[in-house]
Amino acid sequence: MRTSIATVSLSGSLTEKLTAASRAGFDGVEIFENDLLASPLTPEEIRARCADLGLTIDLYQPMRDVEALPEEDFARALRRARHKFELMGRLGADTVLVCSNVSPQALDDDALAAEQLGRLADLAQDHGIRVAYEALAWGRHINTYDHAWRVVEAAGHPSLGTCLDSFHILSRYGDPKDIEGIEDIPGDKIFFLQLADAPLLGMDLLQWSRHYRCFPGQGGFDLAGLLRHVLRAGYTGPLSLEVFNDVFRQSDAGRTAVDARRSLLVLQEQVGTAAPPAPTAPIGVAFAELVTPDAAPVSAVLGALGFARTARHRGKPVDLWQRGDARILVNTGPAERREGTRLAAVGLETPDPAASAHRAEALLAPVLPRRRSPEDAPLEAVAAPDGTELFFCATGHPRLPDWRADFGYVEGAGSAPDDDARWGVDHLSLTQPWHQFDEAVLFHRAVLGLRPQESVDVADPYGLLRSRAVTTDDGAVRIVLTVGAAPVDDTAHAQHIALATDDVVGAARAYRAAGGRLLPIPDNYYADLAARFEFADGELETYQELGILYDRDAQGTFRHCYTHTVGRVFFELVQREGAYRGYGAPNAPVRLAAQHAARGFTGG
Amino acid sequence: MRTSIATVSLSGSLTEKLTAASRAGFDGVEIFENDLLASPLTPEEIRARCADLGLTIDLYQPMRDVEALPEEDFARALRRARHKFELMGRLGADTVLVCSNVSPQALDDDALAAEQLGRLADLAQDHGIRVAYEALAWGRHINTYDHAWRVVEAAGHPSLGTCLDSFHILSRYGDPKDIEGIEDIPGDKIFFLQLADAPLLGMDLLQWSRHYRCFPGQGGFDLAGLLRHVLRAGYTGPLSLEVFNDVFRQSDAGRTAVDARRSLLVLQEQVGTAAPPAPTAPIGVAFAELVTPDAAPVSAVLGALGFARTARHRGKPVDLWQRGDARILVNTGPAERREGTRLAAVGLETPDPAASAHRAEALLAPVLPRRRSPEDAPLEAVAAPDGTELFFCATGHPRLPDWRADFGYVEGAGSAPDDDARWGVDHLSLTQPWHQFDEAVLFHRAVLGLRPQESVDVADPYGLLRSRAVTTDDGAVRIVLTVGAAPVDDTAHAQHIALATDDVVGAARAYRAAGGRLLPIPDNYYADLAARFEFADGELETYQELGILYDRDAQGTFRHCYTHTVGRVFFELVQREGAYRGYGAPNAPVRLAAQHAARGFTGG
Repeated sequence: MRTSIATVSLSGSLTEKLTAASRAGFDGVEIFENDLLASPLTPEEIRARCADLGLTIDLYQPMRDVEALPEEDFARALRRARHKFELMGRLGADTVLVCSNVSPQALDDDALAAEQLGRLADLAQDHGIRVAYEALAWGRHINTYDHAWRVVEAAGHPSLGTCLDSFHILSRYGDPKDIEGIEDIPGDKIFFLQLADAPLLGMDLLQWSRHYRCFPGQGGFDLAGLLRHVLRAGYTGPLSLEVFNDVFRQSDAGRTAVDARRSLLVLQEQVGTAAPPAPTAPIGVAFAELVTPDAAPVSAVLGALGFARTARHRGKPVDLWQRGDARILVNTGPAERREGTRLAAVGLETPDPAASAHRAEALLAPVLPRRRSPEDAPLEAVAAPDGTELFFCATGHPRLPDWRADFGYVEGAGSAPDDDARWGVDHLSLTQPWHQFDEAVLFHRAVLGLRPQESVDVADPYGLLRSRAVTTDDGAVRIVLTVGAAPVDDTAHAQHIALATDDVVGAARAYRAAGGRLLPIPDNYYADLAARFEFADGELETYQELGILYDRDAQGTFRHCYTHTVGRVFFELVQREGAYRGYGAPNAPVRLAAQHAARGFTGG
Repeated sequence: MRTSIATVSLSGSLTEKLTAASRAGFDGVEIFENDLLASPLTPEEIRARCADLGLTIDLYQPMRDVEALPEEDFARALRRARHKFELMGRLGADTVLVCSNVSPQALDDDALAAEQLGRLADLAQDHGIRVAYEALAWGRHINTYDHAWRVVEAAGHPSLGTCLDSFHILSRYGDPKDIEGIEDIPGDKIFFLQLADAPLLGMDLLQWSRHYRCFPGQGGFDLAGLLRHVLRAGYTGPLSLEVFNDVFRQSDAGRTAVDARRSLLVLQEQVGTAAPPAPTAPIGVAFAELVTPDAAPVSAVLGALGFARTARHRGKPVDLWQRGDARILVNTGPAERREGTRLAAVGLETPDPAASAHRAEALLAPVLPRRRSPEDAPLEAVAAPDGTELFFCATGHPRLPDWRADFGYVEGAGSAPDDDARWGVDHLSLTQPWHQFDEAVLFHRAVLGLRPQESVDVADPYGLLRSRAVTTDDGAVRIVLTVGAAPVDDTAHAQHIALATDDVVGAARAYRAAGGRLLPIPDNYYADLAARFEFADGELETYQELGILYDRDAQGTFRHCYTHTVGRVFFELVQREGAYRGYGAPNAPVRLAAQHAARGFTGG
């Protein structure tokens, strides 16, 4: 199907918006009136610009408060409409959106609404224009799709049809059965379809609509369900995104447009009108790669954690550190950013790296140029929205190239402790740029096939953070996406690698005995644990001694502690018992405050 | 009355919060449990710190999900409570907040709730502690203040009382009569009063409460009305602020605490329990002062606008430019900030400058050190939250010193055109730091006696701006406070001085004839004006030629145009007709886009 995007969904000048929509591969745009008014380009120049960019102008919008008016007011509305139809002629736009009347002048009179919409359609027809009438969810008298359709049907005019907007429909209906009536509308009378998702917020419809819409798959609406009804009705027009979102208004238009297109690809995959390569979900974390200007501090931490440096890359200053199934690459690259040590890449273990890469590319993930030399093993990689490099790879697979083929054991390298089954990567926590949190969640779901978990607010002493995990169902891959309270916090919070162990107490003791420093946790925290839970003799004292945090839910328990921070990176030791699926969120405020307090204590 | 603030209302570590509360002059604090858990200080150390800072610990909070539980669950709750009462003993806190139960385990059984709260109060009494029971607005069965009070009354325990929270009460009641029942509660059974305001949002109560509370006078609740009821009931405890606000969480704790204290001073003034010096509202704008590293570009604009340099300060490089009642000081000071030319100070004409200054000081406005030399006329000044210096002064008043006494006519200075009645300052537009918008509105209302108008969202091409005017009722002083979409935009938007004229067309023509450059406005804007309004022959063409924007409402018309930008400052020419009270908000997106497009065109 053709795809389109409303200019209001993107940031910047009209020219910037059109360029971004075209580059992202959209077929057309809806021109939002304010964007035209604010543009120094004439309508003819806008038309030519769109043509040059390969974009059709699928809709001009909106026309407001037109129908069911006292005759005098309607005459004024018709006068306005004549001006706009002439403008549309110059633009080359043939469909205009008319929103249902919200003004106090509007009369509760469907027959009058139909009659006046018919007269508007007469005028439109003279200009070769179609009128798409849409029910706003807060329309004064007409605010449901079926009511708008009844009025359109009553008017019975060839140049009058309806426009369906997923926000206005799904924000009002709880029961999927309520929207089945869409299928009864003749497809050729559905002149347009506008798509937006939204998080499920209990708030005033107008505010919800104006500030919190998002792209399909980023919110809580069942857009696939809606789209199936619209397709069964016979709709053949474009899928068009109309998203009012305070964050997108500030974001780079190019990125937003790609994010938008990806959302439509995924939606079309769901309803079967597009078939990108099927997802090949990762089955584990092959490695995490740290880039550092100085390998010594992070190597010291890894050594104290019981990791052994088992191999070195044949052509680059990259060491492989290993304990059990946890593999960490330490890349002494140039210090690209002043933060020093950072988590730069993740190797995702997949049963078919090439298929994973094809999927990612089809879903518009930026494919990274090979950084390997020609003789290296082929490694497919894409960039995540936060810039993390994601490698699709295989480890010890009988019929696939092994990414470790480029590594050789070197003199002096240790060997990994023999506890393969007991250590691994529990999860990775990645701080996201503020403007790209929704994009990141959709990316990890759509491109990697991970499942987003619930979004959680976490109180840092200096602002609220938002955190959302994306995981495989079996928990073999867990990535926690975190975002600060405001754009300034983009880099204020560290990334971390959580290591799974079956004996967090032993691991913490051994780490400390080897000279590692654990994040100190306030005694008040343990007094509270004593109030909340009962522990065996000495158990709580052990946790307190080591700075181990504790959580328990109906499924199981979670014990975890933290190393000090090196650059932007720290490590967490994690022991899960039972089917505990969380990340110790109740402990996060205490951990974050302790990290702020320990600023002096953080290392290089 | 004593004043208190919950630690959750301020940003930072517990130590930072306590210090900020003390410095702002609060008498006590509510300690929020998470702040204690995250603190490395022992309870005894926290107690000592508070004592050193002159703060009492008025409340420990919260205890949750205690009452109306199955016996086994209640036993666990009592066990937790025992731990917390021991902790409170170490802290020296004698009142604990218990929130009404929200858990699915809670039973709908008031008798059981009363009985269990009584048993909790027994335990509390043994520790010398009082239990203040509060209805959360989203409590499972008990969610109104009167229901909570009935349960407390039924328990009939001396150590059990109620806590009233303005958010939980006012978020649920529309009719002022609904809260009169507060007066029927015996004052000595109101153990605590928590105050928070909130903007009137139609949204889920929990989200509204957790993210959007603000200090009294910053939202839409009638807190004075509520407080009068509570005082009539006989309450003698502290006024305590409990404000969950995403922005305050990120803001400097010291500033927030002062803002908080100011809000309570104003609230107490409203109900008559405090009497700061009465407000002396300004009656005009005496001058606006620009600071610039190079006077030439801004002097050229002023000259082209028909201003004359009429005088020069006797001791400083400050010129007075004047046209009619519009007076602008150009101060060639050191370039303090890289932005260059900026609006640094405003002279507010007041009938009693000393009284205005006393009021400001009593309401915690930072008093500025005199920058004048000893022989200069005395000028009282305070700093607004955005750093603008506000001078309280008199111009040509028979019995007050004239701020112009320090200025002398100098050779070569021109004289002002003879159009005193026709030119003046219409309004000043000041960009506010992102974290201080609510503070700024309250400051201008409380300290200066200006009245806040409605808050307006304005779509800039790169993000939504929020704008709110504070004015005198007669419009003699109008200040428009504007804030960007996110902290990064703090300085992205310019300040401006809007000059009132009774002939904007003539003024614009004269400005252009004198070499001034007007902001070009797209033709599409005028095509839209033609669709929306009818104009006399040639009228619209004149506006289009000059870049004059037009708005009309039921009260009157507004015509305005803009100069190019010098540093961070530009000028607007404004002609109001009839009783139009706005600022041309419908035109703001077009103007902002034009200013972005004209970046190359902006000067010095």
